[in-house]
Amino acid sequence: MRYIEMSRAELLKEQEALLSKYGQYKEMDLQLNMTRGIPSKEQLELSMPMLDTINSTSNLVTKDGTDLRNYGGVDGISEAKKFFADILDVSTEEIIVGGNSSLTMMFDTISSAMGHGLLGGTPWANQGKVKFLCPCPGYDRHFSITNYFGIEMIPIEYIDGQPDMDTIEKLVNSDEKVKGIWCVPKYSNPTGITYSDETVRRFARLRPAAEDFRIFWDNAYFVHNLFGEDTKLLNLLEECKKEGNPNMVYMYFSTSKITFPGAGLAGMATSVTNAEAIKKRIAVQSIGPDKINQYRHIAFINNSGGIYAQMERHSEILRPRFTAVAKALDENLTQSGVASWSNPNGGYFVNFNAMIGCAKKIVSMCKEAGVVLTNAGASFPYGNDPEDKNIRIAPTSPSVEELIKAIEILAVCTKLTAIEQLLKNS
Amino acid sequence: MRYIEMSRAELLKEQEALLSKYGQYKEMDLQLNMTRGIPSKEQLELSMPMLDTINSTSNLVTKDGTDLRNYGGVDGISEAKKFFADILDVSTEEIIVGGNSSLTMMFDTISSAMGHGLLGGTPWANQGKVKFLCPCPGYDRHFSITNYFGIEMIPIEYIDGQPDMDTIEKLVNSDEKVKGIWCVPKYSNPTGITYSDETVRRFARLRPAAEDFRIFWDNAYFVHNLFGEDTKLLNLLEECKKEGNPNMVYMYFSTSKITFPGAGLAGMATSVTNAEAIKKRIAVQSIGPDKINQYRHIAFINNSGGIYAQMERHSEILRPRFTAVAKALDENLTQSGVASWSNPNGGYFVNFNAMIGCAKKIVSMCKEAGVVLTNAGASFPYGNDPEDKNIRIAPTSPSVEELIKAIEILAVCTKLTAIEQLLKNS
Repeated sequence: MRYIEMSRAELLKEQEALLSKYGQYKEMDLQLNMTRGIPSKEQLELSMPMLDTINSTSNLVTKDGTDLRNYGGVDGISEAKKFFADILDVSTEEIIVGGNSSLTMMFDTISSAMGHGLLGGTPWANQGKVKFLCPCPGYDRHFSITNYFGIEMIPIEYIDGQPDMDTIEKLVNSDEKVKGIWCVPKYSNPTGITYSDETVRRFARLRPAAEDFRIFWDNAYFVHNLFGEDTKLLNLLEECKKEGNPNMVYMYFSTSKITFPGAGLAGMATSVTNAEAIKKRIAVQSIGPDKINQYRHIAFINNSGGIYAQMERHSEILRPRFTAVAKALDENLTQSGVASWSNPNGGYFVNFNAMIGCAKKIVSMCKEAGVVLTNAGASFPYGNDPEDKNIRIAPTSPSVEELIKAIEILAVCTKLTAIEQLLKNS
Repeated sequence: MRYIEMSRAELLKEQEALLSKYGQYKEMDLQLNMTRGIPSKEQLELSMPMLDTINSTSNLVTKDGTDLRNYGGVDGISEAKKFFADILDVSTEEIIVGGNSSLTMMFDTISSAMGHGLLGGTPWANQGKVKFLCPCPGYDRHFSITNYFGIEMIPIEYIDGQPDMDTIEKLVNSDEKVKGIWCVPKYSNPTGITYSDETVRRFARLRPAAEDFRIFWDNAYFVHNLFGEDTKLLNLLEECKKEGNPNMVYMYFSTSKITFPGAGLAGMATSVTNAEAIKKRIAVQSIGPDKINQYRHIAFINNSGGIYAQMERHSEILRPRFTAVAKALDENLTQSGVASWSNPNGGYFVNFNAMIGCAKKIVSMCKEAGVVLTNAGASFPYGNDPEDKNIRIAPTSPSVEELIKAIEILAVCTKLTAIEQLLKNS
């Protein structure tokens, strides 16, 4: 029976049973961690053969004469640029392959815009308080970057599983202080949704009030499907070109969840004009990225059947985890009707919504019972979930057994918190 | 006979002979490049065994439980921090080990100071036109960074082989717009000099007018001696602490010229207070450096007899090159008395001074004869050598034969340019 349909007496009885269960969990002295969207040990093992790709007998001078060991090359080796250009369906002139972190590239793009301005424009820092739109729940580390630079963050809701394009269009096209928007367009963190063709086209058709408005398109999960079927995302750069707005988008990607999170490759795709401007900055910043690691990656992925074969191996490891979480959520929570959650086709998260006003309490109760969840509100600008209902579940790293136990406890806490609220309001 | 003592007739005769030689060189269709301070192929080979240090069977979880393959760790793995802390005689809390480029770290420190200010101070960008002192000739890429950020660069001369400390003290201690100074304190680029104990102590005793003044101490050649004997550099961080100025210095280092320039490690040493502030920024910027490459480095260097053994192997390769250059310069130029040059004990360059007003002409004549040198003036802020006499010679990458030929041609061009000037003035 749904809690909302229960009588006060029924709720009290249910509460008593749940409190007893909760007490038992607390005594178990569990230590379960579902905070971090990181690959599991088994996934890391998949890329160990990469470390054999290059050894002391390798020829590290590439076809075009580049010595991978020495200085040089601001935008990555040609092999890596071609590899990602092919996957992303852009030209090699539109690709920059860098170090191990796409986050660092995003940070630097914004740092560059703040201090130097984009394509000859006034530095954002000299334009008063500038703003970013933040579809949320979203990626907490995006919001940390804009917050660090003192950029005002405006939350944007999802409507029917897509970002609220009406509001986005209104704000971007009318307010020249709106300089950017954070997007995770595919298997989004944490909602799991993928932007529809119509959403992508509406992005491309934006007519920003600010010439230096940019879409920060963090395609972090571009090949990260969970069930063998790719959810197609339209190529925003291509669409922007069709609409005469080629410079409006920076697309970021990385191999952090394809090879090794700490030792992968990151890159970006953007218009040739943007890419040329960025390369000029990189030329001041460094004497080139780690070309050996770039070569190691491309050789490994090509040798192991290509990127989709590698991702299929990842999803074989992840699928039982996501399936177990979905099943446990269903078994423990569907009947009560006090929570809803996503069933993503890709990415790294399950998005969980409790009753309004309950998320912080749930996270704190889980912690007392040995289950650490991401802080409630973390997926919102300034860590502030206005409805205090959203919790991000990261099922990739724990084992299936740990996940089932953790979801059981999450369910008990969610139900107890809901009952408490229902009793208060009844 | 010294040219300056020659009669007009003698000069004309010498000129005729040199022009004939120069003509012969031009016909040889040579292609010699002495522009870049990069390791030679032979040096790169020294580190090839590093690529065997880690392979698919390696245990990549360190003693403290860090999985080197996964996310995490803003300031480097503890093994790498300890390694560099020991060499630099600082504590591990004073060390940050990052990615592959110390230049990127310097850029980021300045970017951080410009946009956010240092330790709670006003951002440099909001303090009007700020200034950097630039002992020169110095490292062109330092000057590119400050130029990129619109920081005014004030050239500082060397006096008796040391930076002009009187002027430095006067400017730093009186002008709060002076925010920094670029130093390559050991085997300096390009002069080859090492700062004396007295110079280091005078740096530590600075009483800057600006609270947010910093010494950018690029210790790029900290273990890079050429002749088996280390020129000792005093530990500036230690000296600054003694003087009650612990936060005044950022010391940078890298393995670019120890292992691989493109795929090495970079780091910095600074006070705990500075380090903590930098780590807060890094935590927004990335989810940690390439820990696998850090581990690979430390294991390799330890396995191959330590850093000094590795550097001795480098110097065995470099010594014949520097010796050949010194000999060729002496044989071709000493008698004429129209140039002077350094005989460095370490580092990557020979510093060459022609007669005043001659450097640009010499570089251009060399180019016509197939010898490419670094642009005249490159070692000065804004590329402007006020006396137009300085040329940076980079002898590490070409072969001994190439170097001898290149120096012969440089000598001919230097002498021809000198004669032209002497005839004009006579």
